[in-house]
Amino acid sequence: MERIYIKDLNKYFNKEVEIKGFIDNIRDLQYVQFVIIRDITGKVQVTIEKDEQNKKLNEVISNTTLESTVKVNGKLLESPKVKLNGMEIIPSSIEITSISNQELPINIKDKNSAEIDTRLDNRYLDLRNEYNLNIFKIQSKMVETMRKFLYDLGFIEIHTPKLIGTASESGSEVFEVKYFDRKAYLAQSPQFYKQMAMASGMDKIFEVGPVFRAENSNTNRHTTEFTGFDLEFSYIDSYEDVMELEEKLLTTMLKEIKELYGDLIKEMYGREVMVPTTQFPRIKLKDLYQVLEQKYNYKVDEEAKVDLTTEAEKLAYKYAMETYNSEFIFVTDFPKDKRAFYHMRKNGVLQGYDLIWRGVEITTGAQREHRYEILKNQAEEKGLKEDVSFYLDFFKYGCPPHGGFGLGVDRLTMLLLDIPSLKEAMFLFRGPNRLNP
Amino acid sequence: MERIYIKDLNKYFNKEVEIKGFIDNIRDLQYVQFVIIRDITGKVQVTIEKDEQNKKLNEVISNTTLESTVKVNGKLLESPKVKLNGMEIIPSSIEITSISNQELPINIKDKNSAEIDTRLDNRYLDLRNEYNLNIFKIQSKMVETMRKFLYDLGFIEIHTPKLIGTASESGSEVFEVKYFDRKAYLAQSPQFYKQMAMASGMDKIFEVGPVFRAENSNTNRHTTEFTGFDLEFSYIDSYEDVMELEEKLLTTMLKEIKELYGDLIKEMYGREVMVPTTQFPRIKLKDLYQVLEQKYNYKVDEEAKVDLTTEAEKLAYKYAMETYNSEFIFVTDFPKDKRAFYHMRKNGVLQGYDLIWRGVEITTGAQREHRYEILKNQAEEKGLKEDVSFYLDFFKYGCPPHGGFGLGVDRLTMLLLDIPSLKEAMFLFRGPNRLNP
Repeated sequence: MERIYIKDLNKYFNKEVEIKGFIDNIRDLQYVQFVIIRDITGKVQVTIEKDEQNKKLNEVISNTTLESTVKVNGKLLESPKVKLNGMEIIPSSIEITSISNQELPINIKDKNSAEIDTRLDNRYLDLRNEYNLNIFKIQSKMVETMRKFLYDLGFIEIHTPKLIGTASESGSEVFEVKYFDRKAYLAQSPQFYKQMAMASGMDKIFEVGPVFRAENSNTNRHTTEFTGFDLEFSYIDSYEDVMELEEKLLTTMLKEIKELYGDLIKEMYGREVMVPTTQFPRIKLKDLYQVLEQKYNYKVDEEAKVDLTTEAEKLAYKYAMETYNSEFIFVTDFPKDKRAFYHMRKNGVLQGYDLIWRGVEITTGAQREHRYEILKNQAEEKGLKEDVSFYLDFFKYGCPPHGGFGLGVDRLTMLLLDIPSLKEAMFLFRGPNRLNP
Repeated sequence: MERIYIKDLNKYFNKEVEIKGFIDNIRDLQYVQFVIIRDITGKVQVTIEKDEQNKKLNEVISNTTLESTVKVNGKLLESPKVKLNGMEIIPSSIEITSISNQELPINIKDKNSAEIDTRLDNRYLDLRNEYNLNIFKIQSKMVETMRKFLYDLGFIEIHTPKLIGTASESGSEVFEVKYFDRKAYLAQSPQFYKQMAMASGMDKIFEVGPVFRAENSNTNRHTTEFTGFDLEFSYIDSYEDVMELEEKLLTTMLKEIKELYGDLIKEMYGREVMVPTTQFPRIKLKDLYQVLEQKYNYKVDEEAKVDLTTEAEKLAYKYAMETYNSEFIFVTDFPKDKRAFYHMRKNGVLQGYDLIWRGVEITTGAQREHRYEILKNQAEEKGLKEDVSFYLDFFKYGCPPHGGFGLGVDRLTMLLLDIPSLKEAMFLFRGPNRLNP
């Protein structure tokens, strides 16, 4: 017999059904046993009267434990008196497919009854809580939608190496690997290889994969490994093209997520999914500080105004909401030395942007410098030479003008669902003090 | 103006068009310049007569080099006399967007004119060869199709950590990472975490991501990093369910690839894409050796018959083709100690399989042992204890029966296109002697 998911049961009233799941609850009363079965789509009640005919089934239930897994066959009845979905299954057979220990180390019904570290130690149980489980259903759909958007535009998905030969981009925060009789490093981003693909004529590419950061910080925003969503595309006219693509990508994703999960997100995570209806506002860094001072009396030293402060990110969001009813805002025109050497510059201004969503910077995007001589100078200016020479080679034999950006899948998830910590927005968090499970 | 891809030009005869690409060839004759432009979709001729009116354009072309990138605007004419697609562009403007060095380190028109190592050193140019470039267009579509198949079945895509705390699965071949003041390791597969997802009630999951193998082998089949395509799903009845899913997944993928790229693959890689029309044949290991001896007089020592030899894999393919007209064959019933401890066993026989495609093993799949006590014993039997205790914990509190398998994206690409070496089927190969570029 074919297993039916609990969410689909309402198509099978008065029919024989087979369901499979965890035992979510048992109420073993004098004349009846009520068993709640949970699968990834929902919960349903199984009702077993205590009588001679059901003796074996009653015994099976008496001898089992919560969180054991079962396969139940039986007849599905419409039962308005049953609070849970107005239905119940009268079983003809119950098979216990695995048995759980009596005592769980954490309470999976209330994720907040344990500290985050205890929860992460027991992540295999913690994820059974539906608040947690749904995060990953939604995350998967989010990435699926973003990929589809890019495939439809002709983007190719590539897989770049995570083992690299030189600690190039910014040496201090890179993990070192013992690589036979030499050293390798873990890639902090696919940046150089995305650009290599442009030099190779691949035109439009993206990658979804792990990136590694050897940052010894223990905050709710830091992790040593996360999932990057990175793209790069050729023959752009300016970084405006990059902003436009990102805008469309995120709008498409939010539209799809709202359609599929909008209600769930509102109910379970208390947050409205807001689908942008117009272009995201754009503002120059200098103008932003001016407007924040005017509007919110936010004053900051001149030296700090060369980049976004955390507070400025928050206020920029406030400003964008109040002025444009937009959760997003692009900040442009950063001074040239405030971003990596490979960003294109024009009159000392970076041809790129930061994108702020809900008060947090989610992307740095840019047109890249594709002209060998200029790029080489920019690298040297930052003191980079030997380590990036393999990368500079990519630009010697013609390379289309190009640009791109990167997003963090976990951070995006955190912001979408208003989760307080990155630790909960990742399947398995990794930090300086956490490598397990 | 909107850029038009070269493959789409035939919709724009007698219209103004804009194309962008590399300069593939220049013939600078007495009265005319013929310039071939190449983008990721094809090539087209730009024709510039040498006259007063074209003086500037003629100069631009005279001063440029092959492999520089350009933007060309002009009128597209239908020109049956032009061998290349029967069309040409009469340009009104040509902008050189990047300039290539005169001398390329490899000949990109003939990928075989350089040794593989020289090619890999210059991979950013090597990939401009269309044989190489198309590999990754096809690979991207292959993975896209496989993902879609799984999404449609309700699978969730997860991202498991690559930094792990213990060198668990098979310690010797694992890379060690300097992780602040301790050691971490690079995951050799997402196996344990795929199974954790099952214990968490995630029901059906997959992952596409890098896996790392510290094997010091320099062959055409080995690499230290590749892209794994791994899945796991719950509530199976036996490993037959796993085989069935893999069969459907691969058939769906091959069908889509044949439709989109069948002709290209035949023409460029000389291989017919064969879409399976029936179930893949299944044979027990013991029976396979018997049939190989009968049919092909293949004799092998009894001790060797406990697993597949490389020669047996090749002959199994021959047998499957001759007997079932199938490029695939499942081999089952391996003895219990020939696979990892987490495979389920029944009467000393592994509840799993190897899948052979075109003479090469592409998957080991199985039902996993989900019962804590039995799993613990199987681990101990293999001498595993401390290192896997975090993993064994996953099974203490109920875990659905489940199974799954893994495929190597690069190996699949290699076999699909009949590429002689894995080095060419990866965007950037990594081996004991290669970490660059």
